[in-house]
Amino acid sequence: MTGEIRVIPVTGMPEVSPGDSIADLILEHATVESADVIVVTSKIVSKAEGRLVDVDHAAPAARAALIEQESRRILRRREELYITETRHGFICANSGIDFSNVVDGAALLPANPDRSARRIRDALEARTGLTLAVVVSDTFGRTWRRGLVDVALGCAGITAILDLRGTADALGRPLEVTEVAVVDEVAAAADLVMGKAEGVPVAIVRGVDRGWFREGSVRQEIVRPPGEDLFR
Amino acid sequence: MTGEIRVIPVTGMPEVSPGDSIADLILEHATVESADVIVVTSKIVSKAEGRLVDVDHAAPAARAALIEQESRRILRRREELYITETRHGFICANSGIDFSNVVDGAALLPANPDRSARRIRDALEARTGLTLAVVVSDTFGRTWRRGLVDVALGCAGITAILDLRGTADALGRPLEVTEVAVVDEVAAAADLVMGKAEGVPVAIVRGVDRGWFREGSVRQEIVRPPGEDLFR
Repeated sequence: MTGEIRVIPVTGMPEVSPGDSIADLILEHATVESADVIVVTSKIVSKAEGRLVDVDHAAPAARAALIEQESRRILRRREELYITETRHGFICANSGIDFSNVVDGAALLPANPDRSARRIRDALEARTGLTLAVVVSDTFGRTWRRGLVDVALGCAGITAILDLRGTADALGRPLEVTEVAVVDEVAAAADLVMGKAEGVPVAIVRGVDRGWFREGSVRQEIVRPPGEDLFR
Repeated sequence: MTGEIRVIPVTGMPEVSPGDSIADLILEHATVESADVIVVTSKIVSKAEGRLVDVDHAAPAARAALIEQESRRILRRREELYITETRHGFICANSGIDFSNVVDGAALLPANPDRSARRIRDALEARTGLTLAVVVSDTFGRTWRRGLVDVALGCAGITAILDLRGTADALGRPLEVTEVAVVDEVAAAADLVMGKAEGVPVAIVRGVDRGWFREGSVRQEIVRPPGEDLFR
């Protein structure tokens, strides 16, 4: 884990429309190498998968109805901000619905982001013959900290959590930190070159530990079951 | 923001002892360039600042007393895991006290991580004549997601939050995502080369947007006041 990591923006991607192949678009605009992790913002995955709905941005009731429809439950509300648990089990603002960058509408989260990641990864591997990983990312707030960070909604070809249980510290004692959410750190790193206004929906994270390349799942590894958290 | 970012581990650093100059140690083991962000794990900052205490690891009561002493309040407890609000205002496990990698003792968090970052940054700039930023990082859990990620406890020379309010999306409408916690994303990116068992306590993040280089503060920008969060 002592090599260097590069985070490379994929620029020049066109607007994505329903039915587009994200794998094809990536390969038209980037050169990928074996063991690259390709981070794709969920926004373009939603667009490619046709997860777009009409909604009147000026009508708070229409927004609220959509947020509710996409949630399992509403945890908190403050004015127009809803903190909801989505059908995937993510806790986030407004059920993860993105009302920006969609004309007269909104983009829902992908229905199954792990599956979306697997499809893109499978297509990329089929076209290149390389071993690759894909992370589908989105921008979430945090309970106790201001500001937003990118996290992983889905992944393929990379473990979501690096489990270090059983590893010793430098003094030979068990590590206290044992489960690192590496896909979330990969998503955060990718956001450093994505920006928000510039239209860079894909980044390549190159150089991550080869040992992390095994099949992973955000839903199974990272989504915390309601009975396990201390604040819901 | 369309350039590439490199995350470079600083290897070969020795064990840090109270009174050591972290800036000197970094410059002995790495070549820094203008506009580098140097990410330093809080563990070695605590050691250099002498924030070490004796504690019997085998005595849960001694651990608990120390955790309580370092907290403003205990939010939740499950067996030996305490979720506390530290004196800095961080919400984390066990008041951020690290019981690993310290012989017969524990490392408390730095008393003022923004100040720690400023001191290291000032020393690095004085010795090199370059414009540099420093982030002091630690590994925290998240309320709703399994696994741990590195976040920033303190920063100097870099804005903690990138404020994009007033920026338009690609369609000319206001962005929904307006405040990005870039120092947390930098800390997460750095952790990708730090690992937990390998003893890489410093990483250089090279290539971040030059516009982010202005004086920042985790305490002022990122720590969410109790009245503002929805779950405390």
